Amino acid sequence: MLERVPRRIRLNAFDMNCVGHQSPGLWRHPEDRSSDYNSIGYWTHLAQVAERGRFDGLFIADVLGTYDVYGGSNEATLTAGTQVPVNDPMLLVSAMAAVTEHLGFGITAGTAYEHPYPFARRLATLDHLTGGRVGWNVVTGYLPSAARNMGSQDQLAHDERYDHADEYLEVVYKLLEGSWDEDAVVRDRDGCVYTDPAKVHEIGHQGTYFSVPGIALTEPSPQRTPVVYQAGTSPRGLAFAGQNAECAFVSAPSRDKLAQAVSRIRAAAVEAGRDAKDIRIFNLATVITGPDEVAARAKHADYLRYVDHRGALALLSGWMGIDFSQYDLDDVIGQDVQTNAVQSAVETFRSGGGHASADGEPWSIRRLAEWVGIGGFGPVFIGSGAQVADQLQDWAAETDVDGFNLAYAVSPGSFEDVVEHVVPELQARGAYPSEYESGTLRHKLFGRGDRLAENHRGAGFRLASAGTRDGGAL
Amino acid sequence: MLERVPRRIRLNAFDMNCVGHQSPGLWRHPEDRSSDYNSIGYWTHLAQVAERGRFDGLFIADVLGTYDVYGGSNEATLTAGTQVPVNDPMLLVSAMAAVTEHLGFGITAGTAYEHPYPFARRLATLDHLTGGRVGWNVVTGYLPSAARNMGSQDQLAHDERYDHADEYLEVVYKLLEGSWDEDAVVRDRDGCVYTDPAKVHEIGHQGTYFSVPGIALTEPSPQRTPVVYQAGTSPRGLAFAGQNAECAFVSAPSRDKLAQAVSRIRAAAVEAGRDAKDIRIFNLATVITGPDEVAARAKHADYLRYVDHRGALALLSGWMGIDFSQYDLDDVIGQDVQTNAVQSAVETFRSGGGHASADGEPWSIRRLAEWVGIGGFGPVFIGSGAQVADQLQDWAAETDVDGFNLAYAVSPGSFEDVVEHVVPELQARGAYPSEYESGTLRHKLFGRGDRLAENHRGAGFRLASAGTRDGGAL
Repeated sequence: MLERVPRRIRLNAFDMNCVGHQSPGLWRHPEDRSSDYNSIGYWTHLAQVAERGRFDGLFIADVLGTYDVYGGSNEATLTAGTQVPVNDPMLLVSAMAAVTEHLGFGITAGTAYEHPYPFARRLATLDHLTGGRVGWNVVTGYLPSAARNMGSQDQLAHDERYDHADEYLEVVYKLLEGSWDEDAVVRDRDGCVYTDPAKVHEIGHQGTYFSVPGIALTEPSPQRTPVVYQAGTSPRGLAFAGQNAECAFVSAPSRDKLAQAVSRIRAAAVEAGRDAKDIRIFNLATVITGPDEVAARAKHADYLRYVDHRGALALLSGWMGIDFSQYDLDDVIGQDVQTNAVQSAVETFRSGGGHASADGEPWSIRRLAEWVGIGGFGPVFIGSGAQVADQLQDWAAETDVDGFNLAYAVSPGSFEDVVEHVVPELQARGAYPSEYESGTLRHKLFGRGDRLAENHRGAGFRLASAGTRDGGAL
Repeated sequence: MLERVPRRIRLNAFDMNCVGHQSPGLWRHPEDRSSDYNSIGYWTHLAQVAERGRFDGLFIADVLGTYDVYGGSNEATLTAGTQVPVNDPMLLVSAMAAVTEHLGFGITAGTAYEHPYPFARRLATLDHLTGGRVGWNVVTGYLPSAARNMGSQDQLAHDERYDHADEYLEVVYKLLEGSWDEDAVVRDRDGCVYTDPAKVHEIGHQGTYFSVPGIALTEPSPQRTPVVYQAGTSPRGLAFAGQNAECAFVSAPSRDKLAQAVSRIRAAAVEAGRDAKDIRIFNLATVITGPDEVAARAKHADYLRYVDHRGALALLSGWMGIDFSQYDLDDVIGQDVQTNAVQSAVETFRSGGGHASADGEPWSIRRLAEWVGIGGFGPVFIGSGAQVADQLQDWAAETDVDGFNLAYAVSPGSFEDVVEHVVPELQARGAYPSEYESGTLRHKLFGRGDRLAENHRGAGFRLASAGTRDGGAL
């Protein structure tokens, strides 16, 4: 079952600047601290836990709107605290970076919400402050409620969003890769030269959506462009990922679905002229573990008691575009509920193994809410450290996924449990590092330096910009 | 000379996420650390120094463009490192907040660059993370190079910029003051209610520039609206300050000019239905001090040797809109240089006292650059701690200013010198606190609670929004 040379498993912690990120209602659990999300201490502690567990990174999701499909209002989400209130993710980074040395930080930010000129400066600033430990999860659009509050009646059509995002990234690449030569900043104290102006180039960008004629405001940071993360799964999204993504996030509830998703993403990379392994792929997963299986199962049963069914269904309604408030919790799927999308989702969940698939009973809406209410769409791995390690290794071997984006049932408890019980087991098996490698997040992920690979789309903007402006006027 | 009951003097540290903020060229000084601006350690140390000195806050200026008036290019500013490269200021805050308990953070951000919906969330996030220690310096527009890179050929006309900013603030006030009732978040674990949805209101904003129908994404933070800072001096800018500013920044080089500026700002507050003292006013100033006057004067002479004349003139060119590259450094103002604005500026500088006004010689362009090159437009106070304390107290008594925004010659050295030599002297005189008061930045500034005063423009959006939507749909 396992490969002869243990395959390396990579782990991220997955959180959001809100309560109960993928576990609606569990903010009420006595061990949960996610309702301290407003305090710096919650975040610095979490970062230290993740670094102790040698996680690649802490990934912070974001939405700039609310899940208002359920009942057509915010009533359920507000009541349950389902990803609202939600604070900005970027502003957490410097505090966490100050108390860690190696941990990466993956920040979600949408191309629809801020002009790329100031946004590129934010990325560079974080990359400087963290010493090259920042990643950017590119989101092209999401909740309609966000678009409305940004003054647009509708979001751009799906594919046009990606055209817009393509140009957005082009501007970011030009600014971060092309504007300042590697050796532009000389800091020559005797010669009285901070920057050699001949080595700073106007990007001269004139496109469909943006006009950015000038220079980048920031000097080259350790990674220049932060590590690019992406989670698109549509054909257009995959093409975008193939060109731009260095890491991809997947939320596949079953091995079959995950294997397909991984295969599609790797094919998209090859299609874009890159290697299949040039994208690190992480699947959403929740781990519930303890000293032994009995303890882990008891925890799971305990957590289930705290799931907020309406809150979970509000999340699911937003994700699926189906208003689940029309159903009773006791409605049986396949009998009372005949909607194809719901039946198909449930079949997929059941086939994935994990926390709600053991028996053959038909699922109620309540059961569906419980599934979603712990870890969202991802699988839930329950058991001793060794049992969970088995599952992670099996999934990785069978699907070619590189690692897991770990959601929590309770935070930081779920992460602390993984660090205590699962990580040492994976380390003992040779599937997980005992110490961090040195270098930037990108180097830790790929082992070949700090900068975008030469075959990555963004690298093409290095020479183009410098070339057309060689020694030119500023 | 001094008032019988010592008048309280307030101090801020003034910096920017770049090298040599108001002292072009001094990044080359052996004691300057501002070229570590890319590292978190520079900022956390600076914050700790400011807190040790019981400063009200650390104020971080910002520009989103370059000073390209001098010679019509970025050549001089890049070479000298004159406020370019420049990183984002907001992203520094959480790291500094984590190592301090009382220090406030004043962040500059422009109303022209980001939509108020995500920006209000950033403000609320920082106010949460800092426990209510954040201020926002509202800038309505600045360098033309910034506007160009944001896709606009020109900035809005001056007065229209303020109309735009008025509405921008209206949206921010509605979101931060009006959307969530004080007691909306109940965190009722047994009742399974995070937020009472009846106490969260859509703001329904439909204006000239923005349409924001929905709810704020953030729960009420300690100050709700962060402390509002402003620095406008035009009639329209003063009207804006009168309505919105809780603190005002002035860069007056002389007592006369400062007294006039203070008087105008206080009149604007009264005009807006507030008290003259409802705005705390800080003047830019640079202090060069040491164990005694001789040591301080020696420091000043040493610093002057590091001023980058072209870098200083590039800054001055940007501020005044005059291209100083047309002059030689040895040109004498009033003889070789007849420009009225330049002559008038020099007269003002000379009348201000401080570091370049002692003799009666005509000034050269070099002398002008030296004046600007240490502390920008603000006065420079040189001497022992007692001598500087005298000057600060004299200026405050004669101009009615509340305090000083301290620029540095070298950072953090200039701040450390103030904390070591000037603060104890002011404390001994009863003009400066030995310990912080408790509470938010706003409470520390005004001593009457955490929230916007009832007579402040923003307070009007509390009831208006809640009133029209009383218990309404979400």
